[in-house]
Amino acid sequence: MLTLYEYAPSGNCYKIRLLLHQLGIPLTRIQVDILKRESRTPEFLAKNPNGRVPLLELEPGKFLAESNAIIYYFAEGTPFFPEDRLEKAEVMSWMFFEQYSHEPYIATNRFLISYKKAGPEYADTIAKNQKLGCAALNVMEKHLSNQDFFVGNRYTIADIALFAYTHVAHEGDFDLSTYPKILAWIARVQAQPLHMPITA
Amino acid sequence: MLTLYEYAPSGNCYKIRLLLHQLGIPLTRIQVDILKRESRTPEFLAKNPNGRVPLLELEPGKFLAESNAIIYYFAEGTPFFPEDRLEKAEVMSWMFFEQYSHEPYIATNRFLISYKKAGPEYADTIAKNQKLGCAALNVMEKHLSNQDFFVGNRYTIADIALFAYTHVAHEGDFDLSTYPKILAWIARVQAQPLHMPITA
Repeated sequence: MLTLYEYAPSGNCYKIRLLLHQLGIPLTRIQVDILKRESRTPEFLAKNPNGRVPLLELEPGKFLAESNAIIYYFAEGTPFFPEDRLEKAEVMSWMFFEQYSHEPYIATNRFLISYKKAGPEYADTIAKNQKLGCAALNVMEKHLSNQDFFVGNRYTIADIALFAYTHVAHEGDFDLSTYPKILAWIARVQAQPLHMPITA
Repeated sequence: MLTLYEYAPSGNCYKIRLLLHQLGIPLTRIQVDILKRESRTPEFLAKNPNGRVPLLELEPGKFLAESNAIIYYFAEGTPFFPEDRLEKAEVMSWMFFEQYSHEPYIATNRFLISYKKAGPEYADTIAKNQKLGCAALNVMEKHLSNQDFFVGNRYTIADIALFAYTHVAHEGDFDLSTYPKILAWIARVQAQPLHMPITA
């Protein structure tokens, strides 16, 4: 049985739960409370020296870190990952975009505002993240202006990776009402077979 | 002919030049001066809406963004990318680590200190990046304590991705002398056939 070390509200952890549910692969979940710094204990650092969740234990003592690497591991060879060489790289391109240009701003503001309940000393950080997060949303909105999904016009792990924090961006005070293409894409992702919510 | 839109000193752009040189694939290089915001002009944004280099033009009008997605595109099916399913995902894991936990701190301080010549108003940012960059170097040092390369004990694009900014980390005031395993790995990467420096 696969074991996922996770912080349940994390979008990065949700990506894995969602894909494995859609693939019909069962999973044991172990909660790691990052607010209590449980991912930085000596015991956890022995599993993942980078001190982060999600972390997947494939078999006892064999671990794989990084949400998008984990979903790639399970998706390749399934309909959730393309076979075409360029489309494969395009999925990776959007997943690197997600981790570099999207998650650090959109996920961070969600965490600061809705989970850490950050005080006014974070106001400058939140304002900067708001601006950069909107820049990422603008890139997504433009890309979705003439296609239904991010790569190859079908649902792949590029959509799962980007959906994870985009659909809860309002918890970081991002207003999606000015992004109609993103809203329509969110609805398409939620209409996929075996979709399940982040709260499941 | 492939065309690389790049800022020559960028480690992200160097990754692509290095891999393609080692693969014997020729490349036309077009300089985009990010200090002059040339990656944010309407003309460039039409090529890459995310306004970043590197950007690879595969054929006229067909673009691929994100350095690690680009090197994946060329490496798969060559000795620079594994064939084993778990090792493939481990290469991805280290490349996502590089973009999320390493580059934002180590590359950013190199850029601020050695290229932008940032003033004292950046002191807090540089100090924060120094701390987080050292945390990434610590993860690398620990991983290299019992192996020569990052995945499968041979040179792959995981090494290329991590080498790009690590070997010039001193330009961001990171002191690698306390990381003997990283220094030995840098020498091993530089000893690979057809290696070429970032300044080439």
